[in-house]
Amino acid sequence: MAFAPLQNDTFLRACWRQATDHTPIWLMRQAGRYLPEYVATRARAGSFMGLATNVDFATEVTLQPLERFPLDAAILFSDILTVPDAMGLGLSFEAGEGPRFARPVRDEAAIAALEVPDMEKLRYVFNAVSSIRRALDGRVPLIGFSGSPWTLACYMVEGAGSSDYRLVKSLMYSRPDLMHRLLAVNADAVATYLNAQIDAGAQAVMIFDSWGGVLADGAFQEFSLAYTARVLSQLKRDGADGEPVPRIVFTKGGGLWLDAMRALDCEVLGLDWTMNLADARARVGEGAQAKALQGNIDPNVLFAPPERIESEVAKVLASFGPPHADPATPGPTHIFNLGHGISQFTPPDHVAALVQAVHAQSRAIRT
Amino acid sequence: MAFAPLQNDTFLRACWRQATDHTPIWLMRQAGRYLPEYVATRARAGSFMGLATNVDFATEVTLQPLERFPLDAAILFSDILTVPDAMGLGLSFEAGEGPRFARPVRDEAAIAALEVPDMEKLRYVFNAVSSIRRALDGRVPLIGFSGSPWTLACYMVEGAGSSDYRLVKSLMYSRPDLMHRLLAVNADAVATYLNAQIDAGAQAVMIFDSWGGVLADGAFQEFSLAYTARVLSQLKRDGADGEPVPRIVFTKGGGLWLDAMRALDCEVLGLDWTMNLADARARVGEGAQAKALQGNIDPNVLFAPPERIESEVAKVLASFGPPHADPATPGPTHIFNLGHGISQFTPPDHVAALVQAVHAQSRAIRT
Repeated sequence: MAFAPLQNDTFLRACWRQATDHTPIWLMRQAGRYLPEYVATRARAGSFMGLATNVDFATEVTLQPLERFPLDAAILFSDILTVPDAMGLGLSFEAGEGPRFARPVRDEAAIAALEVPDMEKLRYVFNAVSSIRRALDGRVPLIGFSGSPWTLACYMVEGAGSSDYRLVKSLMYSRPDLMHRLLAVNADAVATYLNAQIDAGAQAVMIFDSWGGVLADGAFQEFSLAYTARVLSQLKRDGADGEPVPRIVFTKGGGLWLDAMRALDCEVLGLDWTMNLADARARVGEGAQAKALQGNIDPNVLFAPPERIESEVAKVLASFGPPHADPATPGPTHIFNLGHGISQFTPPDHVAALVQAVHAQSRAIRT
Repeated sequence: MAFAPLQNDTFLRACWRQATDHTPIWLMRQAGRYLPEYVATRARAGSFMGLATNVDFATEVTLQPLERFPLDAAILFSDILTVPDAMGLGLSFEAGEGPRFARPVRDEAAIAALEVPDMEKLRYVFNAVSSIRRALDGRVPLIGFSGSPWTLACYMVEGAGSSDYRLVKSLMYSRPDLMHRLLAVNADAVATYLNAQIDAGAQAVMIFDSWGGVLADGAFQEFSLAYTARVLSQLKRDGADGEPVPRIVFTKGGGLWLDAMRALDCEVLGLDWTMNLADARARVGEGAQAKALQGNIDPNVLFAPPERIESEVAKVLASFGPPHADPATPGPTHIFNLGHGISQFTPPDHVAALVQAVHAQSRAIRT
């Protein structure tokens, strides 16, 4: 597949721990409800899944934030629950309720019946990836993504979001054998899914372990981290145009396990706002298994006035510390992001202030 | 005030890092909806606040779990939101909805009007403490408690529970001056409130920083930890019967900040299930500012069959490591607890299995 050459490779360079002239920035959920143009497209699509499964709509909303803000990467517009939906669990989004599965997986028979889904059922995702790549026309790289095996398992067992994860943890503590079987299928499905996104044109991939942080120490390593590693071990290294594809892992609430995550075979670790970036850099930013770091400003900072946003950006950049400046060798690098998805209530002007502040301040500390 | 002499001082000894013949255990929210007798008393009381404000009902439900399980401590039955209620915010509990304030505090005028409430408005709490002490008759020590200044602020600004803390964090990032004023009033109110509980007979006190873990690194230290320290600096050291009163601080999701919490002037740090107990012991269990550790099994373990509960107890005890055995010197000690409040769906028989396992296994590793 031939796509247009990349014009802004800052994000990819930072993933590979190469020096950049500014700190690249993109935002989790950057295409979303805080943008009026997104709300308008979603209204035309009729529903969230109507939006996600239509290649033209998915392409349109993926590019919307790039029209407003000079972001350094695009991310596929989709949902982390497409994979279990393709497994036959029956995904729907009720208004104001979040995702729901018609057929949650809660017993031995249901888990025994699970299989890696036919990727043809997810063709709409891969078509969207290729369509977005063409529409981007080389402006910035495109990130593909999936939920982690554990995070998918949470939704598959609970059937919806949860405040206490009682059902999935009951299964995990009562029948760890069944949970391991479920996670193994998920891991192989996620790997196949991400490889198909890479083949379709994704230039980086990210695994969202959104609920890894709800696990107990010990359980995290056994039921989340091990299966993220199983995904990583199966991923293709080169993309559709022959370029290597960096891999990002983000465990929300996973700061306590950074030393364990250091051993993951990936290039970038995402961090939420609870983690001190200087500590993280000291622990995983240098040495043999060094990772680039992505994050980690609290999305609620975006509700403050622009001058406060600027001072909070300065704190995050100062916490990471002096940027890597030698183009000849890999070194610690930082990709600016939120520590979690952007709130639907965020004023778009404040996002503009954030992106501007990150670009301007990070350029200034390099000169 | 004269109360009966204490028969089981295992919990207090462990708070003071003295050797014990078993690991003491109590459970956060041990008097609660998972007990049918609690549900019956609450039905007679008519409402949650009807229960909490009636001395006889509060005494009755506090003792209920002790009738079933050989727990090593009792904890006052009350709610963390009594203090802002006494400030005039108008607390209510709608069925199935959780707490709600009629008059949340969201602007400069509302924050300027806040004052440390007249403790006479909280007399029902102090009367309950004295009544429970008499009813306990020396069986086990009684723990008093309060929410932390930050955790109270979350509810006071949001007006109810929140999934994203948008309002309270918007205030914090936009007008830190107002947030500091709110937290200072809260800290002085909490200190006064806990001192009155100590005067009424509380033998230990615990500060629940339930929402400290939602803060960003930096913001936690400035807006939560500093005000917990302000409370601690004002607390009485001796109880109604002249015995010293240990102080417990629990920040849910605070494991990343354990090194900072080490400097708190308190005896015990509570830990949730994400923290590795061996790491915590190494970091804060010994040396000049050493703390006893309380926690940290995942409450969802209680949904597993008893034999799994026993093996998870063994993991927690093994993670903490060899118990402190020399009665002549203080050393690392562990108080067993959940990492968060017990679920209303917990089978009481499983709680019996947990308490039995902790007592039996911890005795066995001491011989």
